[in-house]
Amino acid sequence: MIPVVICGGSGYTGGELLRILSGHPYIKIVAVTSEKSAGKRVIEIFPHLHKYNALIYEPLNKEKLLNKADIFFLALPHGTSQDIVNFLFINNKRVIDLSADYRLTDPKVYKRWYGIPHKFVSTLKKAVYGLPEIYRGKIKKARLIANPGCYPTGAILGLLPALKNKLIDISSIIIDSKSGTSGGGRKADLAVSYCEVNEGFKAYGIGTHRHTPEIEQELSLLCGKEIKVNFTPHLLPVDRGILTTIYAPMGKKKTAGEVVKIYNETYKKEPFVRILEYGIYPNIKNIRGTNICEIGLKLNERTNTLIVVTAIDNLVKGASGQAVQNMNIMMGINEKTALDTIALFP
Amino acid sequence: MIPVVICGGSGYTGGELLRILSGHPYIKIVAVTSEKSAGKRVIEIFPHLHKYNALIYEPLNKEKLLNKADIFFLALPHGTSQDIVNFLFINNKRVIDLSADYRLTDPKVYKRWYGIPHKFVSTLKKAVYGLPEIYRGKIKKARLIANPGCYPTGAILGLLPALKNKLIDISSIIIDSKSGTSGGGRKADLAVSYCEVNEGFKAYGIGTHRHTPEIEQELSLLCGKEIKVNFTPHLLPVDRGILTTIYAPMGKKKTAGEVVKIYNETYKKEPFVRILEYGIYPNIKNIRGTNICEIGLKLNERTNTLIVVTAIDNLVKGASGQAVQNMNIMMGINEKTALDTIALFP
Amino acid sequence: MIPVVICGGSGYTGGELLRILSGHPYIKIVAVTSEKSAGKRVIEIFPHLHKYNALIYEPLNKEKLLNKADIFFLALPHGTSQDIVNFLFINNKRVIDLSADYRLTDPKVYKRWYGIPHKFVSTLKKAVYGLPEIYRGKIKKARLIANPGCYPTGAILGLLPALKNKLIDISSIIIDSKSGTSGGGRKADLAVSYCEVNEGFKAYGIGTHRHTPEIEQELSLLCGKEIKVNFTPHLLPVDRGILTTIYAPMGKKKTAGEVVKIYNETYKKEPFVRILEYGIYPNIKNIRGTNICEIGLKLNERTNTLIVVTAIDNLVKGASGQAVQNMNIMMGINEKTALDTIALFP
Amino acid sequence: MIPVVICGGSGYTGGELLRILSGHPYIKIVAVTSEKSAGKRVIEIFPHLHKYNALIYEPLNKEKLLNKADIFFLALPHGTSQDIVNFLFINNKRVIDLSADYRLTDPKVYKRWYGIPHKFVSTLKKAVYGLPEIYRGKIKKARLIANPGCYPTGAILGLLPALKNKLIDISSIIIDSKSGTSGGGRKADLAVSYCEVNEGFKAYGIGTHRHTPEIEQELSLLCGKEIKVNFTPHLLPVDRGILTTIYAPMGKKKTAGEVVKIYNETYKKEPFVRILEYGIYPNIKNIRGTNICEIGLKLNERTNTLIVVTAIDNLVKGASGQAVQNMNIMMGINEKTALDTIALFP
Repeated sequence: MIPVVICGGSGYTGGELLRILSGHPYIKIVAVTSEKSAGKRVIEIFPHLHKYNALIYEPLNKEKLLNKADIFFLALPHGTSQDIVNFLFINNKRVIDLSADYRLTDPKVYKRWYGIPHKFVSTLKKAVYGLPEIYRGKIKKARLIANPGCYPTGAILGLLPALKNKLIDISSIIIDSKSGTSGGGRKADLAVSYCEVNEGFKAYGIGTHRHTPEIEQELSLLCGKEIKVNFTPHLLPVDRGILTTIYAPMGKKKTAGEVVKIYNETYKKEPFVRILEYGIYPNIKNIRGTNICEIGLKLNERTNTLIVVTAIDNLVKGASGQAVQNMNIMMGINEKTALDTIALFP
Repeated sequence: MIPVVICGGSGYTGGELLRILSGHPYIKIVAVTSEKSAGKRVIEIFPHLHKYNALIYEPLNKEKLLNKADIFFLALPHGTSQDIVNFLFINNKRVIDLSADYRLTDPKVYKRWYGIPHKFVSTLKKAVYGLPEIYRGKIKKARLIANPGCYPTGAILGLLPALKNKLIDISSIIIDSKSGTSGGGRKADLAVSYCEVNEGFKAYGIGTHRHTPEIEQELSLLCGKEIKVNFTPHLLPVDRGILTTIYAPMGKKKTAGEVVKIYNETYKKEPFVRILEYGIYPNIKNIRGTNICEIGLKLNERTNTLIVVTAIDNLVKGASGQAVQNMNIMMGINEKTALDTIALFP
Repeated sequence: MIPVVICGGSGYTGGELLRILSGHPYIKIVAVTSEKSAGKRVIEIFPHLHKYNALIYEPLNKEKLLNKADIFFLALPHGTSQDIVNFLFINNKRVIDLSADYRLTDPKVYKRWYGIPHKFVSTLKKAVYGLPEIYRGKIKKARLIANPGCYPTGAILGLLPALKNKLIDISSIIIDSKSGTSGGGRKADLAVSYCEVNEGFKAYGIGTHRHTPEIEQELSLLCGKEIKVNFTPHLLPVDRGILTTIYAPMGKKKTAGEVVKIYNETYKKEPFVRILEYGIYPNIKNIRGTNICEIGLKLNERTNTLIVVTAIDNLVKGASGQAVQNMNIMMGINEKTALDTIALFP
Repeated sequence: MIPVVICGGSGYTGGELLRILSGHPYIKIVAVTSEKSAGKRVIEIFPHLHKYNALIYEPLNKEKLLNKADIFFLALPHGTSQDIVNFLFINNKRVIDLSADYRLTDPKVYKRWYGIPHKFVSTLKKAVYGLPEIYRGKIKKARLIANPGCYPTGAILGLLPALKNKLIDISSIIIDSKSGTSGGGRKADLAVSYCEVNEGFKAYGIGTHRHTPEIEQELSLLCGKEIKVNFTPHLLPVDRGILTTIYAPMGKKKTAGEVVKIYNETYKKEPFVRILEYGIYPNIKNIRGTNICEIGLKLNERTNTLIVVTAIDNLVKGASGQAVQNMNIMMGINEKTALDTIALFP
């Protein structure tokens, strides 16, 4: 059994790590931290996690935790993560960081979007962006994984085959995303209170959301040119799920069948990407609680536009599930371990 | 008191006409039809409509109804409406048709998208598209109003100022819409049953939704050139509301302030359009149950793209409220009569 | 136009007072207070209240507000209300207090359940419990209305005819209530955040909820004997509405028809109570946004038990609507003014 | 691998059997039937069941299916099940029937509540009521399991310790239940359509619901006396979950601590029943998707009433999970196999 520490275990992604890892046959959680809930039992904070009956939150004392485990999951706020990641990394631990702190390779871009400088640029250079569908080879050898953001996961997986195969004109990509409320985290905040969210729907942070540079970084790397995108997040009155509708003008003359074939070909070995039949579009409800990304395709011939719709569970493929997938890859375990589940429907 | 007949009063738009007209001081509903519920009291079908305690559904017998009223609202299925509208119109009645049958001016386009021929082309030529923000002058004199579709209302109002003022490049307009479930009508249908819709979200009819030609017709008229758009509807797990997110490359060099000013200027006399402060985006929850269209604006300077977000209640400004607004205009009544309400929040 | 002040206008009941009074032809709101939002415009806090474009929250300065109006609505937290009510009352104002501070006639009971002493016992004696269906006569002449709690309104109206007519055995009354989330107020609180409430359902405060003594006080007065009840509140994943299911053994031999007749008879002149046909039960959705209390009845002959189901909107008949109803009665205005509306359905 | 047939696999309980059994290491599904969807792939009907990529619905041909398996799950409508169960049973198969057809031991009671006679009384006598917490010993040896109804499961588990230990006065038990919408089955029906259920809440079938005699049968057996209960179901706007609030006057003088101890003692070896700490009440959200029944307790000393609140997932412990639990017991497999999961939260 591999000992694992979870730093930041009282939020939704932390809770989801606990849920997923409870079904992992090779893992043992030796500590879970929370500043606010230190001293409380996990099941006081998350009554559904009844299997962790004996587990108690402790404060994040990095020196004390260091020798308890070889693998550390960090589900801490952006900014807070920088220092802990660096400490664990230079002490030869394996780190999977669910924050944004090590995702942007350029510290200047990080500073511009997150408002704080990056203090550990040499560690930053060692981080591998944890999207297995692109970086599986590097993840295998990495000790520091920057686990992708929820929106970027859905957006990049939707565009990867199109960009790699130069199907589209990259000058005016539109990424219109709709996320469930758990994406905002577990917190006392009027903006995510029930009566404000329920029966509502709105866009927010248009053109200014911090996932924009992360999406642009990876799309640019995929096609070898600098890409700027229009990214608009919206808030859905559901617990979980992100649906992303992507629009791009076709750059090559292709039939719908050829596009579908390219997408199928690209992902044929991927355990967690499913291309739907042409004309079938994904529903976040069908992949809820799973690590799967479903992709639907439409070639609008009237407008010569490719429309790609992707669905993920923001807490699983968009966060904790992908983190476990990355751990499995790093550790040489079957990638599907603890993740080979079926959605809860309805 | 003006006598009014509602043909097709047992669906959600019919029920909403009854709700709105119950507060109208100059109107008296003299008959309401339903084939399936004929003989039943309105409050058996809609228990919330307690004020219509004595009103009973009757079958649609057009000859019998003809002399009962001067104004007829038709909330019938597409196709069914064609004949009734024509009959009432040639018999000198005023008709407000909530179906799509008289919205598309070109019968060939109608046939292509609705699959049936238009049998009353000369009557079709007399129909006025009932969007007061464009056609108020014509509506005043009309006897036949083709009440706009729900998606088109939100899309057209969002683009009108941009097109009239030639702000945008019209070659690649994206209209990404998200509608509440009542848009699908009141019916026994697994696809709209609670457990299928709740906690779900999906796109449907991408590039093939019948509101596409309606949107394109009106946008083309606004700018004097043929426009093709990418229109994608999505199904939201809420009862009411449509949020539409529109993307178009800027065609002119303008500042955000100039764009806002143009939008404010265009709609300054409109009682039911509200331009929000720059950076504030609408939420369908804030206009629920009202005839208001709220519009938020963003000029994304990184991508030189104008993003317009509009919110309407699909059953009110997107259907029955706009129908009453049109009736008020036709009858020379204050346009806000029975419509000057505040949203139910939360 | 009667000048009105609202003290505590940034919560859900305050917002609802503003919504309802916007349709009141004889009322003008001259001030609205909020400590936290002082200086902000009402529409910043409640974007749906667009009609109050010019209204700005101010701090509650009682001396300064005193001469601005004759009628004061107080939607302040329990405890805070005591002093303001007393000040306004002894200065000859009319006060409608939506808090619990003046509802319990016995200050000892108040202290036991609310944990603080009542400092203004002589003013407390002047308060009239604002349930028009019992106290309309007294309300007409009152200057201080203790507006009933949401749960008590639904519970008392459901039991009133049974108690007045001695239909039931009062020794084991069960009141099982289910309330929408707005009942918890507008606040940043994890317990009412979307992801905690949505798709969930739970009981809380069983046997200890503060509305228990209020219910018992009024039921005891109705039958002239001390009554103790089992009252269990539950939290519903909806915005608005309380459904209360009441069980009591029949004390008299009566047929279902006789019971229905007694209920109809009792409420026949009440504008806001509707007895449904026997076998039809209310749904909170049918009365949402209205001041109506719907009541369904079942006489279970197998167990000799009377089951009464009542539905109200907790923010309207359970708070702000009833407050306006009380104001109308006090002022000699038609009781239905501003309240004669139809539910928003769906 | 044990071959298994599912008769009636296109409803929610059928889908849930497929979901749960997909994680069962000793089971292979060899056929699944559906009359309406015969010839279609399972994933066309349930896109979330992607693991059953090759499985196709077939019509229920009992002779043809007979030799395909030893274990048959039947998720067929009441009435339809009678004959198939009997056929399989007399042909020496093991049958787990999720319908109500073999739950009521007295065919006269069956006829009274279900309106049709029972044609296979001798087979009916062999059926074991599949509530492991009462009948585990009999289930081990049974070949025909009448899998309990969803409401009865929550009600009986809540009362079992109280009745066995004679804690309560059995003359006036109140069972107030609230169920998620999936309890109504997967069907095209206006009554369960999204816009009718969402934001609503209502009671239905008060005193007449068919689960009443099932509850009474088992409670009567538990205490050796005939019990009649008041059972009221309500419809919750959630997908899954039943919360049941039970009231009974205390018959013995006990402290809260003693009551909790009795409940803990009764269920101490049960893998799927969890007694919460005194004062903590269950939430259906915490057990969603699991086979767990959570129980909260309150002894209301003011009224001398015991209040028990139970939460189950109606599709799991209330149907398909309990069916798998029964199969595990019958087959001598670890009872928790395929059921030892954590709830999806949020």
